[in-house]
Amino acid sequence: MLKQTTVIKEQTTQAHSKIELDYQSVMLELAQNLIRKPSITPSDQGCCDLIGERLEAIGFKLEFMNQNRVSNLWAKRGERHPVVVFAGHTDVVPPGQNAKWDTPAFIPVIKDDYLHGRGASDMKGSLAAMVVAVEQFVFLYPEHQGAIGFMLTSDEEGIAVEGTKHIVDSLLARNEVIDCAIVGEPTTEKLLGDSIRIGRRGSINCKITLHGKQGHVGYPEQLINPIHKSSRLIHKLSSKRWDMPSRFFPSTSCQLVKVHSESGAMNVTPADLELWFNFRYSPRNSFSKIKAYVEKKITKYGLKADIEWDHEAAPYITKRGSLRKSVQSAIQKECGIKPKLTTGGGISDGRFIKQIAKQVIELGPSNKTIHQANERVSIKELDRLRQLYFKILEELLQSKKAARPVELL
Amino acid sequence: MLKQTTVIKEQTTQAHSKIELDYQSVMLELAQNLIRKPSITPSDQGCCDLIGERLEAIGFKLEFMNQNRVSNLWAKRGERHPVVVFAGHTDVVPPGQNAKWDTPAFIPVIKDDYLHGRGASDMKGSLAAMVVAVEQFVFLYPEHQGAIGFMLTSDEEGIAVEGTKHIVDSLLARNEVIDCAIVGEPTTEKLLGDSIRIGRRGSINCKITLHGKQGHVGYPEQLINPIHKSSRLIHKLSSKRWDMPSRFFPSTSCQLVKVHSESGAMNVTPADLELWFNFRYSPRNSFSKIKAYVEKKITKYGLKADIEWDHEAAPYITKRGSLRKSVQSAIQKECGIKPKLTTGGGISDGRFIKQIAKQVIELGPSNKTIHQANERVSIKELDRLRQLYFKILEELLQSKKAARPVELL
Repeated sequence: MLKQTTVIKEQTTQAHSKIELDYQSVMLELAQNLIRKPSITPSDQGCCDLIGERLEAIGFKLEFMNQNRVSNLWAKRGERHPVVVFAGHTDVVPPGQNAKWDTPAFIPVIKDDYLHGRGASDMKGSLAAMVVAVEQFVFLYPEHQGAIGFMLTSDEEGIAVEGTKHIVDSLLARNEVIDCAIVGEPTTEKLLGDSIRIGRRGSINCKITLHGKQGHVGYPEQLINPIHKSSRLIHKLSSKRWDMPSRFFPSTSCQLVKVHSESGAMNVTPADLELWFNFRYSPRNSFSKIKAYVEKKITKYGLKADIEWDHEAAPYITKRGSLRKSVQSAIQKECGIKPKLTTGGGISDGRFIKQIAKQVIELGPSNKTIHQANERVSIKELDRLRQLYFKILEELLQSKKAARPVELL
Repeated sequence: MLKQTTVIKEQTTQAHSKIELDYQSVMLELAQNLIRKPSITPSDQGCCDLIGERLEAIGFKLEFMNQNRVSNLWAKRGERHPVVVFAGHTDVVPPGQNAKWDTPAFIPVIKDDYLHGRGASDMKGSLAAMVVAVEQFVFLYPEHQGAIGFMLTSDEEGIAVEGTKHIVDSLLARNEVIDCAIVGEPTTEKLLGDSIRIGRRGSINCKITLHGKQGHVGYPEQLINPIHKSSRLIHKLSSKRWDMPSRFFPSTSCQLVKVHSESGAMNVTPADLELWFNFRYSPRNSFSKIKAYVEKKITKYGLKADIEWDHEAAPYITKRGSLRKSVQSAIQKECGIKPKLTTGGGISDGRFIKQIAKQVIELGPSNKTIHQANERVSIKELDRLRQLYFKILEELLQSKKAARPVELL
């Protein structure tokens, strides 16, 4: 560390490209220190403190917004617009069986140009890249335009109600507005920058309990079998074409994720059947339309049912504007490719951030090994990601166009 | 007891109708002694010993054919044909929650002309009625025609593979033949004798495991959802008309008794689905036809599946012959009604007995309180059942027609 800091100081008058190698080492060391903390959801294990200290050292104001066992950090440098925020999570999914790992999950190991360890790609690598990109940017442009923010939580991989959602609700309550947010979720398919998320589908969970009348299989005329009753509904939910795909969204899809019904005996039919399903829906549909359709079918099929709905996420998209333009331009310059704009995959904290941020884009490393044993990230890829984040900051906060008003949805 | 025994001895020269009252007391005392033994399947608690001693005292030869924890008794008086066998079980289902009983389950209580206690109607009451009917019959006709047998087990309410099935297999191995069997299962709907079972449907259990491909709900094109795949099969199995009803058999019916599929997470689809179902089938259908049909549909629907079959019982019927005639005639004389001939309800040990007995009929008390708290039997009904069993013995073993060959299936 000391040697690198010295080198940087000596070279301040030169172009920042001359000191690339040193920033890579600084980033790697931060990533390693983060991986060393076994921050399984919702435990932060000091990750927010570690990052907070570094941000404070370069002029950020810190606000810890912890909720119960969850650590939340909101850090901001500057008060002007545009406000450009880096968002991410310090928590990781459990390592699973140790035997499946070639190296210990929480000991960072550099091997064959890869950084190995739980969180390397989801998303402690991205966090290190963001922090060091900002350190470099602030060092070079201490009087940058607008403001830079960090929104960090240790509750993303869990039920995620005390993390980003809580920070966003707190900021909304005091009328803060974010212009651009960059989430570090792993989005790369093959080559860094080949794919970015400009939105996400909505998500609805539903549990239906169908009520029948229990009875002995020998007297079929005296019973109402809820398994028999369920087949039309299951068929309808799984085969219906909900809507047509649009430019950035595939069609809405419904997946049944659990079904259970039993009486405990082979000669007795069950009283009830429970059915759980999930919708991933496009903006061409809506929670209220889907809910009304399902309830109408249940009535039409003469089913006696209790229904529980959970509207987990509304769909969103970031339209053409300064963020999309900056990210695309940075990728084209740094990586020489044109990124695919997608809304695929699961849900992310982007759904909460979009409530306060006009523009949200997710850009991160490869998702190939996330949530698995031997999670790892290419050091070359991670370093290029750091440069991308730096470039995006330059585009948004150091170009004359940065102040251009954002196109709204 | 002493007083009653004395009375019987004094009246031996008179017609048996004169001593009805005393046989009722003898029967009730035996029923009470049986209920006092908490013979929950497969435990016999000495019931077979108690009955065996009494049968031995009136000239029966006993063979205990115990299997593991199951008590089995085969007792026979005489070696000629026709062989008339009383069959039944000494085991009872568990009492369930004590709080639901008005009287202790294993303490026989006589109240309001009812005998209360677990097993009163299923089927310790029938056993007492059979034993005392035979005691009376042998007392009056010590040189009766044919032979009388008793086939008792303590494993009917359970999986029933070490009980009656074992006795039947042992007798078949030495070429014994039974002409008529009367099973004491509760068959009465409202009035004693209003309904008798002359056969039973077949029963098939099946478990199908459908294989899909687990995946994230966000990528529906990459997964195969076994719940979705199951709907056509469930619909077909539950809505198909398998065959037409015949005189004594309703149509074959299929009931799905259990379905289970889950991944453990709301955003992940399951890998497999398990489906359990039961067929109750008439002689118009067959195990092989049903099996072939289901397997053909699974292939047609393109399902990847493992299938396990359990042919629990083949259907059977006792055609017109000496047994049906005797039972019908006895009911008409004693109860003044014409019994309904049925094959309804679940399966019973009749399925095993039919393999060795040319004719099998089930005749017993009301089934209204069986397997429930406060199981009870009307004392009047039980005493009339005893008289019916006696009458049937007279018809089969003391009339000239008794030796008439039986009509086979």
